[in-house]
Amino acid sequence: MFEFRVQQAEGTARAGTLTLPHGEVRTPAFMPVGTHAVVRGLSANDVRLTGAQIILGNTYHLHLRPGESVVEEMGGLHRFTTWTGPMLTDSGGFQVFSLQGLRSIAEHGVEFQSHIDGTTRTLTPERAVEIQWRLGADIAMAFDHVVPGQSSPEAACEGMERTLRWLDRCKARHGELMAGAEQRNDGKAVAELPYRRTAVPPIQTLWPIIQGGIHDELRQRSLEGTLERGPWTGIAIGGLSVGEPKPVMHRILERLGPNLPVEIPRYLMGVGFPADLLEGIARGIDLFDCVAATRNGRHGTAWLPTGRINVRGAALKGSTEPLDPTCDCETCTTYPRGYLRHLFVVEDMLGLRLISIHNIRFLVRLGEQARTHILNGTFEGWSREWLGRHYARGD
Amino acid sequence: MFEFRVQQAEGTARAGTLTLPHGEVRTPAFMPVGTHAVVRGLSANDVRLTGAQIILGNTYHLHLRPGESVVEEMGGLHRFTTWTGPMLTDSGGFQVFSLQGLRSIAEHGVEFQSHIDGTTRTLTPERAVEIQWRLGADIAMAFDHVVPGQSSPEAACEGMERTLRWLDRCKARHGELMAGAEQRNDGKAVAELPYRRTAVPPIQTLWPIIQGGIHDELRQRSLEGTLERGPWTGIAIGGLSVGEPKPVMHRILERLGPNLPVEIPRYLMGVGFPADLLEGIARGIDLFDCVAATRNGRHGTAWLPTGRINVRGAALKGSTEPLDPTCDCETCTTYPRGYLRHLFVVEDMLGLRLISIHNIRFLVRLGEQARTHILNGTFEGWSREWLGRHYARGD
Repeated sequence: MFEFRVQQAEGTARAGTLTLPHGEVRTPAFMPVGTHAVVRGLSANDVRLTGAQIILGNTYHLHLRPGESVVEEMGGLHRFTTWTGPMLTDSGGFQVFSLQGLRSIAEHGVEFQSHIDGTTRTLTPERAVEIQWRLGADIAMAFDHVVPGQSSPEAACEGMERTLRWLDRCKARHGELMAGAEQRNDGKAVAELPYRRTAVPPIQTLWPIIQGGIHDELRQRSLEGTLERGPWTGIAIGGLSVGEPKPVMHRILERLGPNLPVEIPRYLMGVGFPADLLEGIARGIDLFDCVAATRNGRHGTAWLPTGRINVRGAALKGSTEPLDPTCDCETCTTYPRGYLRHLFVVEDMLGLRLISIHNIRFLVRLGEQARTHILNGTFEGWSREWLGRHYARGD
Repeated sequence: MFEFRVQQAEGTARAGTLTLPHGEVRTPAFMPVGTHAVVRGLSANDVRLTGAQIILGNTYHLHLRPGESVVEEMGGLHRFTTWTGPMLTDSGGFQVFSLQGLRSIAEHGVEFQSHIDGTTRTLTPERAVEIQWRLGADIAMAFDHVVPGQSSPEAACEGMERTLRWLDRCKARHGELMAGAEQRNDGKAVAELPYRRTAVPPIQTLWPIIQGGIHDELRQRSLEGTLERGPWTGIAIGGLSVGEPKPVMHRILERLGPNLPVEIPRYLMGVGFPADLLEGIARGIDLFDCVAATRNGRHGTAWLPTGRINVRGAALKGSTEPLDPTCDCETCTTYPRGYLRHLFVVEDMLGLRLISIHNIRFLVRLGEQARTHILNGTFEGWSREWLGRHYARGD
């Protein structure tokens, strides 16, 4: 369990397989985000059909609604959502630190006001781990102190060092829960939907998050401190794609790369526009997540190999062509462009769903294609060409 | 084509089979409404999985957006929507007569202002038939003069007589179009989605609509005048379920019944709450349509054999039970109640879709059950018991 095997590397790019309690994840891979235990507007089956292997849930949102105790009583996130494959939950750190003016930070943890009902709540490293334990995803994330995009070295250092201290506390609490894992469901009547049984994961793993803002030296210290506290079954890089220029993100990944352990998967948090995937994969990243696929889908922006298009555009009126003739998703193999446009014009929610499905499939497929090219040793040329066309368009 | 066969009758209730260019419809049957060429929020496959055999499109809405010429150029409603089964379009009469203050009625037709862009447009019997011809459904409806719910005998008489005069014009124009049907797609480049070919219906049938408000004598005259103008492959009863008490609707159906031709299907327009189906079937109705299934679904009201429930209700919180343990729809065989409630609480559109799917399946299944009971000669006892429980609950 939680085994990762690098099958092939080409330069710093890797193709691997991650084994989790609920299944395997062939990497590199994009993970769709199910903020409220649902990938916006999509059924678990819609997501399955995109080829996505693992999805995310947001601890902050699920703590507020429906609450981790409700999810736990119902048998955990897998039974709650009917998604039977691997899942990962974030720690809530990113969300609570984004609540500017509604939260106060102390060494103990973060006190914040719920954006739903205004109630005051506290998230600590221990609490974040406990909530995720009760949600029951395959992978839980450590509670980190996230600083704004281009923070000063001082602010970034404070967040990075606190993240390390909090990592100790997350690890300790997670270890206690793991030690008691055998008793987890003992004596508890978890009602069963007889037609939809899914295994309750016997164990959950905890992944640490590297912080340090845009400062290479802080990033290195964060990595070193994190590895000292290991071993880990995976490692995440947080606090990127939060406003810094893309070349800065690429530089940080390049400087960190040689010092990252090769034998565990690397997850670049919150990053996942199409070009970001290929740039990240080239720099050794294995896992990505981002809400852009579904957010763009809801706004009618579809990603195509030839660049983005607005599905509302007059050019699509009456078109019997598929949205992307090279795509194998449900949307592209079923519906004509003219109908997709019509759905947005009449504001039917089916349109939002169909474009979200396409965009997720687009990123999942990009991961699959990258993987195939890495296995064949053709990744560098292929991705250079892909990115060349992309940047030439100014996307 | 357009053949109807009554397989079994029990009292005035009938089980039949209607053969249409795009397939068979086993009656009695509920037809989901796809106002804008989409059953709100559902893919063609979602609708297929409910067991629905035929769906509706609204001529008024499709004329405004995307316009019948766009649909025609794309190969007709079937190719536009990817729904491959039978379809029916209404004539737009009900919608334009509902545009109080935005329309003026004359013998020639109805001048109205588009609710989308305010443009002035005219719908005449000929125009309504032409638009539907270009949309290309299996069944087109005659353009009728619909009067408000409880109109005076004078107003109802005027509407009924005009509907008959307009029926002459509809039939004449439809006959011309039919005569030229062989040339229909000649020389026209209908682009094909190579992976989704559907047959273009060679012919379309036209069904008349009986009007006359809540006045039995006017209804009889409407029926007689309609039959004189026949023969028809089906007949509709319009202007009911528009505010009159239910017993009045039932009385009208009972008085009309003995004089309706037995050999063609009878379609009760705009009627389709669960009890209405059984009451209508008992009185010889074969086809129903109504937006209540999807409208209620969007508002979180689900129909169950034990009565309606609000899916947002606190009682569903944390429940691992299926929504309706007796139902075989995707929603009930997949999701726990607690998750459905959560989707409404966090306002994810998946919730709307899942309850719409259940409600449609509920009505489709009620039709299937009624049919089975008619074939077995057990309809009367079964429906009496079903309605008894229903009325006892005060639903």
